[in-house]
Amino acid sequence: MSSSDFRPIEWSGDARSGTLRLLDQRLLPQAEVWLNYTGVEEVADAIRSMVVRGAPAIGITAAYGMVLAAINGEKRGLKPTALKQHLASAHSVLAATRPTAANLFWALQRCSNCIEDSPSAEMLLVLARSIHEDEVAANRRIGQFGAVRVQPGAGVLTHCNAGALATGGVGTAFAVLSEAHAQGKNIHVYVDETRPRLQGARLTAWELSRLKIPYTIICDGAAASLMAKRKIQLCVTGADRIARNGDTANKIGTYSVAVSAQHHQIPFYVAAPRSTFDVSIRDGADIPIEERAQSELINWGEEQVCPQGAAVYNPAFDVTPAPLIRGIFTEMGEISPVTEERICATLGK
Amino acid sequence: MSSSDFRPIEWSGDARSGTLRLLDQRLLPQAEVWLNYTGVEEVADAIRSMVVRGAPAIGITAAYGMVLAAINGEKRGLKPTALKQHLASAHSVLAATRPTAANLFWALQRCSNCIEDSPSAEMLLVLARSIHEDEVAANRRIGQFGAVRVQPGAGVLTHCNAGALATGGVGTAFAVLSEAHAQGKNIHVYVDETRPRLQGARLTAWELSRLKIPYTIICDGAAASLMAKRKIQLCVTGADRIARNGDTANKIGTYSVAVSAQHHQIPFYVAAPRSTFDVSIRDGADIPIEERAQSELINWGEEQVCPQGAAVYNPAFDVTPAPLIRGIFTEMGEISPVTEERICATLGK
Repeated sequence: MSSSDFRPIEWSGDARSGTLRLLDQRLLPQAEVWLNYTGVEEVADAIRSMVVRGAPAIGITAAYGMVLAAINGEKRGLKPTALKQHLASAHSVLAATRPTAANLFWALQRCSNCIEDSPSAEMLLVLARSIHEDEVAANRRIGQFGAVRVQPGAGVLTHCNAGALATGGVGTAFAVLSEAHAQGKNIHVYVDETRPRLQGARLTAWELSRLKIPYTIICDGAAASLMAKRKIQLCVTGADRIARNGDTANKIGTYSVAVSAQHHQIPFYVAAPRSTFDVSIRDGADIPIEERAQSELINWGEEQVCPQGAAVYNPAFDVTPAPLIRGIFTEMGEISPVTEERICATLGK
Repeated sequence: MSSSDFRPIEWSGDARSGTLRLLDQRLLPQAEVWLNYTGVEEVADAIRSMVVRGAPAIGITAAYGMVLAAINGEKRGLKPTALKQHLASAHSVLAATRPTAANLFWALQRCSNCIEDSPSAEMLLVLARSIHEDEVAANRRIGQFGAVRVQPGAGVLTHCNAGALATGGVGTAFAVLSEAHAQGKNIHVYVDETRPRLQGARLTAWELSRLKIPYTIICDGAAASLMAKRKIQLCVTGADRIARNGDTANKIGTYSVAVSAQHHQIPFYVAAPRSTFDVSIRDGADIPIEERAQSELINWGEEQVCPQGAAVYNPAFDVTPAPLIRGIFTEMGEISPVTEERICATLGK
């Protein structure tokens, strides 16, 4: 699995002068371009514009963003109280980038807790690195727990991208695919292209190509008909936020996959680290769903495909209710059935 | 409804020298360009490349294509036997363009029957015009029967384009929308953009804009979540071929809409003229499904979005089993429940 072990998020330097490097995911698979960040506003822009995306990756990026803010505050000679205010402001800037991914708020909260007594870039860098490494380790275990459920020769459908690009490690849903493949299970992956941003066609396909895992890209609307043809034996996706009862927000179209899977009696799984759970939220109805720019649907390359003045609704996520989810693969094991009781027990809440 | 009463297919001239004019639907909504056809090979190309698309419109176009073939044969002074051979060859060329739409084969069969005794361009033109006019009249009645099922204030989801552009008349599924709107039912239409060719975003939205019917474009993956939010009270689509038992082939993604509708207990309807029924086919498993070029998914405008060498599966249609269809709106009335018995009784077979 070594060729999957690349990192789309890199920290170079130390706690006095560091740079966050991000692989610009908007340009994949055509070009691999790395961008360098030394300021928190620019990091916020990178999250907002989807240079980096995927819930765990957003959390990791935000933590490094806090390190950059601390470095810049210390360079300006800010005293502890002023530095804390400066970091609180950085926290706000980063928290305002994208509303749905739990990992963003989870990582920022850990950063704020870390500097509650004495703010320092050094401590924040230790924390950011540990968040990053923890996610990498969590990914591997998620893959191992998930691969158990993949039958030899299975067709596996995934939606959007929950791979290395989305997580910093080997991925969540993608780790299940790569682990099952590495175990010689001879799987075939069906990749929803995932409108409107095409993360499936662009990113998941690119990651599958790197690992030489056999796959086929389909348009999102074709998934149900492939299920009817018995080409798909299991569905697995990542998650952006999981409520206490197991309702799961993920890329728009995920709910449609889950409904179709239930109709065809195909198990639908979610793969996510503990940082994606938000037990403060009772159920999916309370998960904030980001609406993105209408232009993501209106334009096709350089061309405007919708009529002038067309109304467009472009939610980035939908919510799959817990009863449609057979199990959630986490680094602590599989949560199944997906109930509040099992989730809280697994998370130790 | 006069502003919807445009025709994307026009015949100009007579049976000695005529031209088929087609609105190039590939360029909508950006540009309204008409193309002129005087040869059957060019007409076949127009169908294949989707200058004209939509099952009823393909049937009408093919009938006019046969007229052009007859005109050219007569111009070359072909005797009846040679002219029949010439027309049989034209029939084959047109039949080989697209495999799924029943209307294509239905129209061609009517043309062949018409000239069985004595082939003539004049008779074929009378037939083609009558096929065209019959479809226009059928569309109106389909709209009237369908509008009965639309509750005031309803959100109505449609997929792909089954409007004037697809039919030559006021449309099939679209006629239901336009008639309900004309009756003051205050509907709101949700339009699946319909990957990969975006006929929803490009064509249905354009037709809705012309009639000032309120609508919102969504990506295909968002339909299920809108159903969960109770924004949609009814779904209606067109059809490309309906088997004797009511199984219905339509644009890829239609089946996914029907499955989601059932999950949310929302009625899913099909609207189609009798020319779309193929009672020679027992059920949906026997409907030939066209696979189109991988490039429809691989490229995005000028850009290649999938990785080099990516495998793509691009079926143009899927099959919705009859039990998921609440009713079929035809020019003879609504067929409901959708059973072989009711279909054969309605069609008089």
